[in-house]
Amino acid sequence: MTEPKALLFDVFGTVVDWRSSVIRQLEAFGAKHELSTDWIAFADAWRGLYQPSMEEVRSGRRPWTILDVLHRESLDSLLAQEGFTDLSEEVIAELNKAWHRLDPWPDSVPGLTRLKSKFIISSLSNGNTALLVDMAKFGGLPWDAVLGAETARAYKPLPEAYLRSAEQLGLAPGDCMMVAAHNDDLAAAQALGLQTAFVCRPTEYGPQQSKDQAPTGDWSHAVGSMTELAEALGC
Amino acid sequence: MTEPKALLFDVFGTVVDWRSSVIRQLEAFGAKHELSTDWIAFADAWRGLYQPSMEEVRSGRRPWTILDVLHRESLDSLLAQEGFTDLSEEVIAELNKAWHRLDPWPDSVPGLTRLKSKFIISSLSNGNTALLVDMAKFGGLPWDAVLGAETARAYKPLPEAYLRSAEQLGLAPGDCMMVAAHNDDLAAAQALGLQTAFVCRPTEYGPQQSKDQAPTGDWSHAVGSMTELAEALGC
Repeated sequence: MTEPKALLFDVFGTVVDWRSSVIRQLEAFGAKHELSTDWIAFADAWRGLYQPSMEEVRSGRRPWTILDVLHRESLDSLLAQEGFTDLSEEVIAELNKAWHRLDPWPDSVPGLTRLKSKFIISSLSNGNTALLVDMAKFGGLPWDAVLGAETARAYKPLPEAYLRSAEQLGLAPGDCMMVAAHNDDLAAAQALGLQTAFVCRPTEYGPQQSKDQAPTGDWSHAVGSMTELAEALGC
Repeated sequence: MTEPKALLFDVFGTVVDWRSSVIRQLEAFGAKHELSTDWIAFADAWRGLYQPSMEEVRSGRRPWTILDVLHRESLDSLLAQEGFTDLSEEVIAELNKAWHRLDPWPDSVPGLTRLKSKFIISSLSNGNTALLVDMAKFGGLPWDAVLGAETARAYKPLPEAYLRSAEQLGLAPGDCMMVAAHNDDLAAAQALGLQTAFVCRPTEYGPQQSKDQAPTGDWSHAVGSMTELAEALGC
């Protein structure tokens, strides 16, 4: 295996702790607007609509639609279910941007900074460009490029998401390494010839998480943090 | 005029000194391969084919084609004119990447670094993504996002190049400021509602340059360097 030229990172769960960040923002929203519910369950339900909403686009039943719009539709439906019907457009739009303000895991910025000294580091996320750029500003993520579903016009794990991202960097798939906390993301990337690195994030889905507690495939690397990945790749 | 949220930068000429950088690399190439010609004229001729080659795409006579490919076709034709016909594919491909290795003007990195502390800073260049990412790594350009013709699938000054870039950042055109050394680029941006900043680069085309020696429109700002722009925008 030759050394990769670019590292492509899954973002939600791999680089940032979306769950704690969304719960925190929902709780602050509830306090501010005096709305009471189980905000942890609300956050999990919001994320629960993520895959089904993208599947409408992947399947071709729906034309290309960015994640901000899918997140907003899911949010509208959950707010309606709770009977929170008195909120202004501005307030809902702002709440939807919770996904633009996700905290990096503590090792992410130091690890990415080290990795950037040797490799091109880019997102390869199902998030849209504005979401990823705002999140990078918010958390100090030092991306060389912000690629993902919007630039590829395809949601992972469709092959186009990986192949067009490599192509946009002017690289063959084998010169790229997919970095993710999700075995299925890595399996899709590996099938297309990308190198792979598993970063274990055992509490992404909270303390009860059972999935992705360990690597389940023959990945190029399996580590516990971004700084460990930097170490493994000689940065 | 409200404060912009994002600054969108023209790159060739505005952020980097393409001409000196390409001449230097052509001269090194000539020395290495023992090929002799007027490399300054060769560089100007290569750049001279830039607008005509993009115009084939803008006009719709040719399907979407990235700048690396257009640069390569122009290079092939110029090498043939000189009778330099004994070069391997690998050597020509490497020479074509001269455009990935352009030196920033001395004020660009300090100015962009200051501007980044307050605004989203993104390229909005006719260069393709790989070219811009490699150039940023080469010269240390601290972009928050690498946008341009490839992400918009339209070459400036077509309206789509500006509008899709703003849209991908989730911003209205009026929340964006186009920064360029070229009055025609700013005129196209202003017509679509973007704010504008002219950065004078009086020797982009060499000592004989007559064009773009001064602002010719009613731009939001007109400055002599990126650090002056940072000053003007309170960074």
